[in-house]
Amino acid sequence: MQARLAEIRPLVEAELNAAIDALPAGDLSDAMRYAVQGGKRLRAFLVMESARLHGLDDDASLPVAAAVEALHAYSLVHDDLPAMDDDDLRRGQPTVHVKWTEATAILAGDALQTLAFQLLADPRVGDDAARMRLVGSLAQASGAAGMVWGQALDIAAETSGVPLDLDAIIRLQGGKTGALIRFAATAGPLMAGADPAALDDYAQAVGLAFQIADDILDVEGCEAATGKRVGKDADANKATFVSLLGLEGARSEARRLADAGQDALAGYGDAAGNLRDLARFVIERDS
Amino acid sequence: MQARLAEIRPLVEAELNAAIDALPAGDLSDAMRYAVQGGKRLRAFLVMESARLHGLDDDASLPVAAAVEALHAYSLVHDDLPAMDDDDLRRGQPTVHVKWTEATAILAGDALQTLAFQLLADPRVGDDAARMRLVGSLAQASGAAGMVWGQALDIAAETSGVPLDLDAIIRLQGGKTGALIRFAATAGPLMAGADPAALDDYAQAVGLAFQIADDILDVEGCEAATGKRVGKDADANKATFVSLLGLEGARSEARRLADAGQDALAGYGDAAGNLRDLARFVIERDS
Repeated sequence: MQARLAEIRPLVEAELNAAIDALPAGDLSDAMRYAVQGGKRLRAFLVMESARLHGLDDDASLPVAAAVEALHAYSLVHDDLPAMDDDDLRRGQPTVHVKWTEATAILAGDALQTLAFQLLADPRVGDDAARMRLVGSLAQASGAAGMVWGQALDIAAETSGVPLDLDAIIRLQGGKTGALIRFAATAGPLMAGADPAALDDYAQAVGLAFQIADDILDVEGCEAATGKRVGKDADANKATFVSLLGLEGARSEARRLADAGQDALAGYGDAAGNLRDLARFVIERDS
Repeated sequence: MQARLAEIRPLVEAELNAAIDALPAGDLSDAMRYAVQGGKRLRAFLVMESARLHGLDDDASLPVAAAVEALHAYSLVHDDLPAMDDDDLRRGQPTVHVKWTEATAILAGDALQTLAFQLLADPRVGDDAARMRLVGSLAQASGAAGMVWGQALDIAAETSGVPLDLDAIIRLQGGKTGALIRFAATAGPLMAGADPAALDDYAQAVGLAFQIADDILDVEGCEAATGKRVGKDADANKATFVSLLGLEGARSEARRLADAGQDALAGYGDAAGNLRDLARFVIERDS
């Protein structure tokens, strides 16, 4: 899996840079280019591995992988804004509104969302029907019934000061981070016109495991490795999987979910080895 | 034209409300519903008239009309933010960040952009090829080479304090307002798989006339009619078509462009009467 991830990273980076280089030069495109740098590229990996499982080559899945990373980058740029989470550090670097301005960060995020849909329109991705399925699915996953909805719930919970219970956090994360992970993992069957159910089950489990691991890292992680401030959630007196389940309870739930994710891939046999590895990786990573 | 506009308005309103009613309830969808209320619906009109000219009925063009209005509403919500134009009044009502919070305004704008692409994915719009052409065109028009690019140029010009010359303002407005108007006016031929050139010429001329008229209204307009603060541009010592061409020069350029827009429709004959009326209306309106 790490070899495949190492192979995918520069491909996605180049795809994103090529799309951004085609835009008019200036602060806006500079900020967009900056915002899409770095990151683990796990969403791109999900896209390209799910596509490979359905017989599609990297040339077809690469624009989709770049789209999901552009969409993710937009969400980070906006989440970091002073009016939102007010973060000045991301992946160990100044956030976009710190390096440029708030206005540029708002616009760069806006344009990265647009870029995601533009990348899905790339003819390399497949025929019109395949691309249309992706557009519909990404819109569903990332909008006011998916990612943005989860982010709004998160902000509302912080504002109210009332800590969420476990069900509410699971629903919130299902939107905030889960919806885009599910889009990424089902991109392959969507492109191929195949049934996405198994990969969707996998993504739901792994997405939640990923978020539980994030909460654990916020307690145990090292700022140098994670590239962001740690201990934030506890400082904010925010309910997390760790505060609700305890550290051991959270660890064990993350393991259970990683196993469930692996089980969901049974129908794909050995070909899904990389995705099985990823289910393990998300709960064992240190950043 | 006014009769057709009066017919279109409630249809578009209902289409947008139906799409937003399908979202989870809460501040986010409330703010989205609020943000899409009102407005002249000129972009929706352009979509539905250009579709009608190409033999497409309102049932097919309505989701596209709603999409362009959702996209436009997102741009207004973000433009009004404190970090951008910092407006507290829009269409005579408190702006979204005033009525809710900045965070909600950022997220509602984000989700309205997503909703625009979701609406284009509606099967009523046409086959996959038609919808894909719209997705590609809207992404091009609204992103970092179109609308958002124009907005970034506008902010950069304000920040620099150096007034723009005429060419620069024409390029800026070609992005900021022109690109979405061109998308709207060419939606019909894009849906039908026909040549969009004539309607694109029309939209370029009318879009620029519209913006010149806006600048004239900012000087001469009445706050009660326009529903927004007037005299802003002069207060900000901002270069406008009026400051560069003079009031009479701006009026005459707007008239010339409205005529050019009407001429571009020659090939459509009498069927384009409503679009010809619109070219006149944009320069004669009082709000």
